[in-house]
Amino acid sequence: MKAAPSVFELLERVRQRSPVVHHVTNWVTINDCAQTAKALGASPIMAHAKEEVADIAQIASALVINIGTLTPETVESMRQAARAANERVIPVVLDVCGAGASRLRDQKLQELLTSAMIDVIKGNVSEIARLSGQTVRSRGVDAGDIPGEPIAIAQRVAKGRDATVVVTGAVDIITDAHKTFLVRNGHSLMAHVVGTGCMAASAIGAFAAVEPDLNLAAAAALVCFGVAGELAAEKASGPASFKTALLDCLYNLDRETIERRHMLTG
Amino acid sequence: MKAAPSVFELLERVRQRSPVVHHVTNWVTINDCAQTAKALGASPIMAHAKEEVADIAQIASALVINIGTLTPETVESMRQAARAANERVIPVVLDVCGAGASRLRDQKLQELLTSAMIDVIKGNVSEIARLSGQTVRSRGVDAGDIPGEPIAIAQRVAKGRDATVVVTGAVDIITDAHKTFLVRNGHSLMAHVVGTGCMAASAIGAFAAVEPDLNLAAAAALVCFGVAGELAAEKASGPASFKTALLDCLYNLDRETIERRHMLTG
Amino acid sequence: MKAAPSVFELLERVRQRSPVVHHVTNWVTINDCAQTAKALGASPIMAHAKEEVADIAQIASALVINIGTLTPETVESMRQAARAANERVIPVVLDVCGAGASRLRDQKLQELLTSAMIDVIKGNVSEIARLSGQTVRSRGVDAGDIPGEPIAIAQRVAKGRDATVVVTGAVDIITDAHKTFLVRNGHSLMAHVVGTGCMAASAIGAFAAVEPDLNLAAAAALVCFGVAGELAAEKASGPASFKTALLDCLYNLDRETIERRHMLTG
Repeated sequence: MKAAPSVFELLERVRQRSPVVHHVTNWVTINDCAQTAKALGASPIMAHAKEEVADIAQIASALVINIGTLTPETVESMRQAARAANERVIPVVLDVCGAGASRLRDQKLQELLTSAMIDVIKGNVSEIARLSGQTVRSRGVDAGDIPGEPIAIAQRVAKGRDATVVVTGAVDIITDAHKTFLVRNGHSLMAHVVGTGCMAASAIGAFAAVEPDLNLAAAAALVCFGVAGELAAEKASGPASFKTALLDCLYNLDRETIERRHMLTG
Repeated sequence: MKAAPSVFELLERVRQRSPVVHHVTNWVTINDCAQTAKALGASPIMAHAKEEVADIAQIASALVINIGTLTPETVESMRQAARAANERVIPVVLDVCGAGASRLRDQKLQELLTSAMIDVIKGNVSEIARLSGQTVRSRGVDAGDIPGEPIAIAQRVAKGRDATVVVTGAVDIITDAHKTFLVRNGHSLMAHVVGTGCMAASAIGAFAAVEPDLNLAAAAALVCFGVAGELAAEKASGPASFKTALLDCLYNLDRETIERRHMLTG
Repeated sequence: MKAAPSVFELLERVRQRSPVVHHVTNWVTINDCAQTAKALGASPIMAHAKEEVADIAQIASALVINIGTLTPETVESMRQAARAANERVIPVVLDVCGAGASRLRDQKLQELLTSAMIDVIKGNVSEIARLSGQTVRSRGVDAGDIPGEPIAIAQRVAKGRDATVVVTGAVDIITDAHKTFLVRNGHSLMAHVVGTGCMAASAIGAFAAVEPDLNLAAAAALVCFGVAGELAAEKASGPASFKTALLDCLYNLDRETIERRHMLTG
């Protein structure tokens, strides 16, 4: 049995293959998502017209969809993009941004989850709890308190949806119900930056584009993202300089730094 | 009679309550607006689908609408969001971005102003003059010369619209016709950064979410924004590093700095 | 015969006249495009509602359109904006962002190019090759390998379309088929930043707004953009700090720096 590739080996694959990562995402963090994928070495393309999403899937190696500023029209594009990705057998990452904040979001999430195969479902703890059917007092796109234990909730959703589930937070949880990774990298400033959640989904998309074990791909992406966050915090004076440094550090990650700092268990 | 809360006390309220500030805004500065609210301690949610704006109002403590990249569809969402905010009795801040630049903007502003109660109207001097019925030679979204005296114009609009009116510029004017504040904080670099006007509206939204005296809330927001601008200018090498530093400084504002630097009169 | 104005003289014209540059552009880099125009001294306005684009043309001195995140609706707005610009005889710059990535992009580009006069066509080498009718293996919005010689391709498109054609890359090509400029300024980090191509188009729009020789205007814009990139690279730690520094350096460009560094031939 071959050893699993290391985090750095997967990052090197992203850099060498420069996979096209198709996004149908929100208008708030669209630039940050593109720059995250690009900083890791991938080639992002943001394309949401329903008339072209199936074509874009033909040149893409992964799809990232995000309902942060959904409309019925953009969700329809996400649905078509996801189906085209399914046909091409490339992974689909769904960021359930703001799940629970409105009936529209809850309905459209159900539609997306039932009309296409979603390979990775990513959210904060409130959003994933919502997806598990819990009543959660939504704070919009920021995480609030939840009843229950996050790992168990993530595993339940993973099992129910037959997907890898990623819960981002102080400790990131990555699980396909069978195997669960925890990533303890990262920095508290991340919670003060708009878009770090979305950016994490783009990082996962870049890694999922080069590694079929999506649990491993997501974990490796979050290690890189978290380590870059730690390095960024050393340079930052606040949330905006932190975001700049985070993207710079993603671009500059090297083997030695990742191996010294990674806190991946599971 | 209780003394009015200080600027710093209001900032502390934002940080402690972390109010959800709903935005239906433009695509140019949507990230900066979200990050401004977040840096101050609020929880921004950017949601423009007409199918969900009323739901989002239920979890929000203030609404910021901005016509910078309006379409008839997004204005309809703004209208519905504003009505839902009125029903919930949460404050509505309107940024009249680009008023006078097209007939569409002028018409849609009238529609917004007559179909919902707008609590705070914010613009640069050309935009507010336009709203007062003056013929202004539009420079698009940048301020141009106007005939007449800005304070008198602001007071006239405030009286006519029964709203707090905010005119941003080298000296910011905040008036509800009865009481007028002037804020002399800020820095000339702000005029060279795309989006400082929009960001100021988001800051006002964050403060309006925690203080019912909207004149005071807007003045406090602009003091914080202006002081952060002054601090940012000391670190900046140009408009882009200025914006980064501005957001960092908003996040780091402390009582001593605000009390030493604030130039609020009225 | 009067000598052609120098690059710095054209930059000074942008700063003095502060022309309004209308954009109908994509959602990924809309802020960067606006800030690029603004940093150079122009006054950007981003307005895409088909109900107002003709009005906006009345106050604009140039139009920049970009199909990066096109939909049939936004392309219709681009078409109407371009026609209004044609009537006003102000230059139209088209960024063929992602040409070849989908049938929609190829079709809509043909529509735009046949339904309005496009004065400057800008793309990377794959995109311009695609426009010349070549079959190109699209990498989305990033340049790939092309068959044939870039300068000859650019000249062929320029001749066929009766336009100035700009190919951005390590060496920028600017040609109207009769006269060809090469700009060797710039830095390799630019290829790692999302949006530098779009930003270059906005810079061209700002210069085209003040100089009727569009070949010269585009070349001058790219010299400024490239020189700013070189200066930015000296300060940057990665792609995000590079973008910040690039915008700062555009704002701070002076005659001495431009004259010492420019590498414009032709």
